[in-house]
Amino acid sequence: MDGKGLPFFLGRYKRFRMHVLVLGGTGFIGSHIVDALLKSGHRVRVLGRTFKDVNENEYPDLLENIQADFGDSNAISKALNGVDIVIHLVSTTVPSSSNLDPVADIESNLINSVKLFNTMLKLGVKRIIYFSSGGTVYGNPVQTPITEQHPTDPISSYGITKLAIEKHLFMQQKLNGLKPVILRLSNPYGPRQGHFGSQGVIGTFLKQIIDGEAIKIWGDGSVIRDYIFISDAVSACIKSIDLDLIGTYNIGSGRGHSLLDIVNEIEHCTKRKAEIVFEKKRSYDVKEVVLDTTFAQNALNWRPKCSLREGIKLHYEWLTHK
Amino acid sequence: MDGKGLPFFLGRYKRFRMHVLVLGGTGFIGSHIVDALLKSGHRVRVLGRTFKDVNENEYPDLLENIQADFGDSNAISKALNGVDIVIHLVSTTVPSSSNLDPVADIESNLINSVKLFNTMLKLGVKRIIYFSSGGTVYGNPVQTPITEQHPTDPISSYGITKLAIEKHLFMQQKLNGLKPVILRLSNPYGPRQGHFGSQGVIGTFLKQIIDGEAIKIWGDGSVIRDYIFISDAVSACIKSIDLDLIGTYNIGSGRGHSLLDIVNEIEHCTKRKAEIVFEKKRSYDVKEVVLDTTFAQNALNWRPKCSLREGIKLHYEWLTHK
Repeated sequence: MDGKGLPFFLGRYKRFRMHVLVLGGTGFIGSHIVDALLKSGHRVRVLGRTFKDVNENEYPDLLENIQADFGDSNAISKALNGVDIVIHLVSTTVPSSSNLDPVADIESNLINSVKLFNTMLKLGVKRIIYFSSGGTVYGNPVQTPITEQHPTDPISSYGITKLAIEKHLFMQQKLNGLKPVILRLSNPYGPRQGHFGSQGVIGTFLKQIIDGEAIKIWGDGSVIRDYIFISDAVSACIKSIDLDLIGTYNIGSGRGHSLLDIVNEIEHCTKRKAEIVFEKKRSYDVKEVVLDTTFAQNALNWRPKCSLREGIKLHYEWLTHK
Repeated sequence: MDGKGLPFFLGRYKRFRMHVLVLGGTGFIGSHIVDALLKSGHRVRVLGRTFKDVNENEYPDLLENIQADFGDSNAISKALNGVDIVIHLVSTTVPSSSNLDPVADIESNLINSVKLFNTMLKLGVKRIIYFSSGGTVYGNPVQTPITEQHPTDPISSYGITKLAIEKHLFMQQKLNGLKPVILRLSNPYGPRQGHFGSQGVIGTFLKQIIDGEAIKIWGDGSVIRDYIFISDAVSACIKSIDLDLIGTYNIGSGRGHSLLDIVNEIEHCTKRKAEIVFEKKRSYDVKEVVLDTTFAQNALNWRPKCSLREGIKLHYEWLTHK
């Protein structure tokens, strides 16, 4: 790390730069985090399954890409060499797919994560930021907004697996000095998100309404979620890297919006009328999730800044101008 | 089920009898449960890895033994045929071994349990009693005695896996109508228990003191545990079968004893002096676990009846008279 290739104004901070391994760094959230890390002058190694959709970036000297599967122990071991901190964003499932094959969910996510933690400890890499799921680990809330102390009774295998990974991180912290930060993220949205699946309703709805297609809503549209714009999720992650702390934090907007609210906002943004097809409610969808982010705000000195209206506008502009 | 082979006095109750599959029915706890089930006139199918140490019993017409591994999906599927309720006692690990290979712990216990639940649902078997671990799922207590609402932060892979299995049971209850009873058992002891390992300190200490061997204590002997005599654990299980309920229950004596208390009680019982070797504290041992069993006492109309002194006496008599 000699500062070469760095913007001059970052040179003076180079002693604070870290070598960061981003697992799943080519995905929606990961790619934004990689950009932010590079902009901050950190050295970044990305492990991903495919790099075909990755944009050129301004800091090629700071970036190293490794094409490998999360289950490839040798590749993980090599990728960990010399890094200061790991950001773990890998998930092979979404809530809707996890219940179709919970065994595969456990094998690909839980077992490979547990192997990762063991390898980290063997190689002396102590710091890790893990992206957990504020939308699934709590299950149906008994009180709202949800604090980190809320009971954790997931109703999807996805949520159970995320929770078990959290528990292994906590155990390794207590027994072996691992230093985990667990970010229980609400529903992120914004540029580069795919337009399919239950985790990306804003992107999916936007695309369908723009294309004049009917949108599909499971249930009556009253299901309430906490949506966070990607830049707010990324800034929480960057704060977690800069502060040398541990703990579990809710990362969300702290505001709840029903699916029908989202449709209304998109209609307002696009100036188009949505055609809605209502489908049968899905059993694994919890009714309402709004995260209380007070703890994260205080501990990380972080605030979610982007309103739903503004976020939808930015997402819309990306969808229509790229 | 025609009542043939039944003691005449059970014939009149035959409509209440159930067909029970006991997974791990040849182990310490399992064998006692099988005996109690047979005595109550239930039809019992036992799945175990080995039947070589199993005693003859008085009700051969009610008992069917299947030698198979818990991971053998075909055998599990056949064993579930026609049963009303499953008692799941299988564990391939103990806390001390689980942390040496958490991946094997997850594969053999969590994955096979998740497969079991899916097969049960496919075959329409809804009721299950699962033996979880009151000694490990809570981790180091933040308050004591521990109620079922206490935070669950295990510091062993064994505890995390038990907890994840509980979460899958809860999810399958919410989504698919499974009817689980989860018994979070404290440390059971009594006749037929093996004399090794951290879960059987009473049996181990008894045997060593009888044999004039030194006993080994990890740490200073102040570690406090809740010890439950086997008959009290069995009666809680039988009550759970008879009452058609669901839920998670602490099953323990509700009393805490340090390792040094146990040694004192054994010295009192055996009238021998123990020789103690103190070893280094183990990181995965929680400091104190005493279970609050109020919820189980009320819901199951159950009481732990055997005192530590009485239980140690019965265990001692079994060890010296068999």
